[in-house]
Amino acid sequence: MSESYAHRRAALRAKLRDLELDALLVTDLLNLRYLTGFTGSNGAVLVDADGDESTVFCTDGRYLTQSAQQVPDLERIIERPCDLALAAKAKGRTGYESHHVTVDGLDALTKISDADLVRSPGLVEQLRLVKDEVEIEALRMACAAADRALAALIGHGGLRPGRTEKEVARELESRMLDHGAAGPSFESIVAFGANSAVPHHRPTDAQLHTGDFIKLDFGALVDGYHSDMTRTLVLGKPADWQRDLYDLVARSQAAGRGALKPGTELKNVDKASRDVIENAGHGEHFLHGLGHGVGLEIHEAPALSKVGDGTLSAGMAVTVEPGVYLPGKGGVRIEDTLVVRDSAPELLTLTTKELVVV
Amino acid sequence: MSESYAHRRAALRAKLRDLELDALLVTDLLNLRYLTGFTGSNGAVLVDADGDESTVFCTDGRYLTQSAQQVPDLERIIERPCDLALAAKAKGRTGYESHHVTVDGLDALTKISDADLVRSPGLVEQLRLVKDEVEIEALRMACAAADRALAALIGHGGLRPGRTEKEVARELESRMLDHGAAGPSFESIVAFGANSAVPHHRPTDAQLHTGDFIKLDFGALVDGYHSDMTRTLVLGKPADWQRDLYDLVARSQAAGRGALKPGTELKNVDKASRDVIENAGHGEHFLHGLGHGVGLEIHEAPALSKVGDGTLSAGMAVTVEPGVYLPGKGGVRIEDTLVVRDSAPELLTLTTKELVVV
Repeated sequence: MSESYAHRRAALRAKLRDLELDALLVTDLLNLRYLTGFTGSNGAVLVDADGDESTVFCTDGRYLTQSAQQVPDLERIIERPCDLALAAKAKGRTGYESHHVTVDGLDALTKISDADLVRSPGLVEQLRLVKDEVEIEALRMACAAADRALAALIGHGGLRPGRTEKEVARELESRMLDHGAAGPSFESIVAFGANSAVPHHRPTDAQLHTGDFIKLDFGALVDGYHSDMTRTLVLGKPADWQRDLYDLVARSQAAGRGALKPGTELKNVDKASRDVIENAGHGEHFLHGLGHGVGLEIHEAPALSKVGDGTLSAGMAVTVEPGVYLPGKGGVRIEDTLVVRDSAPELLTLTTKELVVV
Repeated sequence: MSESYAHRRAALRAKLRDLELDALLVTDLLNLRYLTGFTGSNGAVLVDADGDESTVFCTDGRYLTQSAQQVPDLERIIERPCDLALAAKAKGRTGYESHHVTVDGLDALTKISDADLVRSPGLVEQLRLVKDEVEIEALRMACAAADRALAALIGHGGLRPGRTEKEVARELESRMLDHGAAGPSFESIVAFGANSAVPHHRPTDAQLHTGDFIKLDFGALVDGYHSDMTRTLVLGKPADWQRDLYDLVARSQAAGRGALKPGTELKNVDKASRDVIENAGHGEHFLHGLGHGVGLEIHEAPALSKVGDGTLSAGMAVTVEPGVYLPGKGGVRIEDTLVVRDSAPELLTLTTKELVVV
């Protein structure tokens, strides 16, 4: 593991040299975790362009033992607050994360530092766009925990008439813990019947009835990485309109997955999926973007949407999640988490996408 | 409820007039919730010093229905991003939350706004220091959920030899949900035996043995408000050193609670509690602050510590949580959440502070 972090810091250094920066002060905790493996709630790292020998990590006294284990390979100072402690050590042209540092925070940094502080937004996030194999393995495990939880929920009769959305959400989250999750990766969406037409419905005391759509949008957190999956099922025999709606969304989702290739423009992935729905006359019932990057954050770059700028690269991890929502009636969303590969994309959420009838 | 929010905005307006500001752009989501009741994940409000008639709330299309219900009394615009949409409408001297707005964020606001943007850190947080009765009722419910969960855990034999810290943490969190919590208010600390000497121990697979200290630090989230409570119990007959350590911390904690009076300097509350421990020769085993404010955040102002500046006011909600930790042996922490009142403080966490032997 320690090697991956050193690799990531080396990749960051290449960027620093391009920008003629002597160092980057990394204060965002997710970027800090990405670069060092540190998982505590307070810390920072001053990444020196010259190498790890002159790079300094900082945390406070609560994390003495933990930081010694997680960040064995960097010089460490124990102080609080870490952003100021490291800014005081910075020299030359030192970048700071101007997309995370507040206006008041910059003021404090400027007062304490002799360095020339340079606005440097998004440098670590640019690296995080393309996942390395250690990250992809964590994503796989996070997706597997969600897959297994859903299988266990169904297998143990968790989706039966009379259960409430809240009960199902809680069982799903509990079963993810059983299967290795540290927690849910976001507030689970469980929507029965007409509630499935609300894209981001929050679970209520509404009960499950025969004939209902069951929309489940949930994910697991493993080693700091998030999974994200939606499946829509039916309790009892599906009506024709449910089957038709499901088939339409499934075709749209397959088209979106099919468009996941290195070099494809982000907006064209959205288009591939959206065209299927628009051609069926349901464009107005699919109002959100097609998908988003996923990693240390549940929503991160790249955004797959109508207005997404940029192109896909191998190693990006994204969701593909079209939906069609008929207000007052019901809706279907089908979502996978996948990794863009040079060949076909790697599917991480393995639960079937045939219409499951429980 | 809607009345409380209007009251809070009126209190903010008094501050704006003192500072000769025409408006405040509130972009922090907790401050937004405090001022409007809106609980969504994207929104902002431009509080005009003239009154609610000229105050504008903003959120995006996902929250059409929810924001109409939660914020019925303000003009609403549906746009994204909200900070820019409202900055474009701002005029005159408009304050912004410079402790939350990033350097890049301010740049974008400045480009779009004709207003004179004025650094205005912490204005809403100053109001949030003193809780109103609606907030205190939410804190009461959050504390009650934690109290009841612990009683149920003990009553159902949840603390028995062989159980792991992780299992107990999970049961405690599940029982808080049973008793009305939306979730735990932070990652529960469950520490058995020598692990109890680590102030912020994370639950492991360590098993409970007869004679162990059981340190439980946990809380519930209700209506956005956090509770925070620590109890230390013993499984089986306590040894003399355990009883002595417990009694010492209990006396220290009572002294801290006794010092909670309007007008008392924050550092003197810490001192009242710390003196008891220092006089017993254990000063070096109590290395953290005595307590912290609690409300929409689990840790907020005021800090009760050696270096805390300022004084207590009636209506502040704080924790009092001294601890003595003997490395490799065991530790005791006892923590309540209380509200400072003109008379005696109001205790919100009602679980007994006698040494519980299970």
